[in-house]
Amino acid sequence: MTVHLVGAGPGDPGLITVRGLELVRSCDVLVADALVAQELVDEASDDALVISRAGMRQEAVTSLLVAYGAAGLDVVRLKGGDPFVFGRGGEEALALAEAGIDFEVVPGVSSIAAVPASTLIPVTHRGVSDRVTIASGHGAAGGEPDYEALAAAGGTLVLFMGLERLPQLCAGLTAAGLPASTPAAAVSQGTLPEQRSVSGSLGDLAVLACGLESPALVVVGDVVSVGERLSAASAVGATA
Amino acid sequence: MTVHLVGAGPGDPGLITVRGLELVRSCDVLVADALVAQELVDEASDDALVISRAGMRQEAVTSLLVAYGAAGLDVVRLKGGDPFVFGRGGEEALALAEAGIDFEVVPGVSSIAAVPASTLIPVTHRGVSDRVTIASGHGAAGGEPDYEALAAAGGTLVLFMGLERLPQLCAGLTAAGLPASTPAAAVSQGTLPEQRSVSGSLGDLAVLACGLESPALVVVGDVVSVGERLSAASAVGATA
Repeated sequence: MTVHLVGAGPGDPGLITVRGLELVRSCDVLVADALVAQELVDEASDDALVISRAGMRQEAVTSLLVAYGAAGLDVVRLKGGDPFVFGRGGEEALALAEAGIDFEVVPGVSSIAAVPASTLIPVTHRGVSDRVTIASGHGAAGGEPDYEALAAAGGTLVLFMGLERLPQLCAGLTAAGLPASTPAAAVSQGTLPEQRSVSGSLGDLAVLACGLESPALVVVGDVVSVGERLSAASAVGATA
Repeated sequence: MTVHLVGAGPGDPGLITVRGLELVRSCDVLVADALVAQELVDEASDDALVISRAGMRQEAVTSLLVAYGAAGLDVVRLKGGDPFVFGRGGEEALALAEAGIDFEVVPGVSSIAAVPASTLIPVTHRGVSDRVTIASGHGAAGGEPDYEALAAAGGTLVLFMGLERLPQLCAGLTAAGLPASTPAAAVSQGTLPEQRSVSGSLGDLAVLACGLESPALVVVGDVVSVGERLSAASAVGATA
């Protein structure tokens, strides 16, 4: 028996992998992130023990995985996005490995490209950007991110964050040298029916994004303009 | 009718999304990348027209998508990884939009995290790396990548490349300021049964990777050491 660390994808339940869904359907124990679609949780068998991790500390989740794994049960730890991209999956895997429990990582569609794509922004585009830097909108210890490094990275920036910090983020990137005219977009609830997005520039994004709900993903760079071209052309096509 | 730009995932056919597989099974025309698993191509219905893009120029592929889309057929363009991550999906989408043809992007599991995960390397890990920069191992015009920017990015580097250029890449990153002792790994054919990987440091990776086959993905940064810890602990667990 094994503990499977499974990526549920970015939100839309159709974006789980075929292998991930098979494991959800056949497991004895399902431990699911709060943000995972209810449709996926409902795929567990009637005999399965289903546990929401909402409200649990990470240490408690990890202990639970070790305990059920040690008991010989087939466990699925269903995580939003991809387990190894800002998902603390590495910590869960280490705890399992060190406890001598067999585990497997089943990757998922990460928000990092899927959420920009949901508003037609490609994170790379020939002649526009051949590099992507992904970071959290807050630093490692909860403080400010390293704006100098982000501004110097070149290419596309994709930032996971709470929208309440968006004004500081735009100001920080501008102070670190990115022009206020740099194209920028914010996408809330990407890939879900509730999705909303705005696009503009680093200089006006914080104002444009008023009223969007967290969590959100912010994209900075010229690929945002490619997304705007795609959206405009699609809209013409749709009404033609 | 619509042209669906669908991500097939990193190689393992079980890593396509549920929605992507449904579209492959129901489409009239399937245009598949050469590297897409045959098992997925075989999922198309017996009535579907199946076209391999192997040997076709990008312009020809794009024209084909526009033509079949304009003919009112339901078309799946099945691409390795994610369509909007180094996949030229943005170009195909623009051509479709400008021709007034309805299209949809169905994201896939990108190699950028799934291939490192297949050798137990998490691209982010609490206290180790909270930032990932993804780039091609060759520059935009086929020349050298921007080593200075990559070396300054901090966090994890993930580089798509042919292994024949690995010695230049390691030398370029070292010359740009990354210590030769920086942990580094190369993964060939990630997520497939033929997968092989090596890990060491920027200083010795090119020698260690002799004999690996392209295409490969290179990971540089301290998360490689997390992967080594995970692999070592798993091996002990497996024999316990």
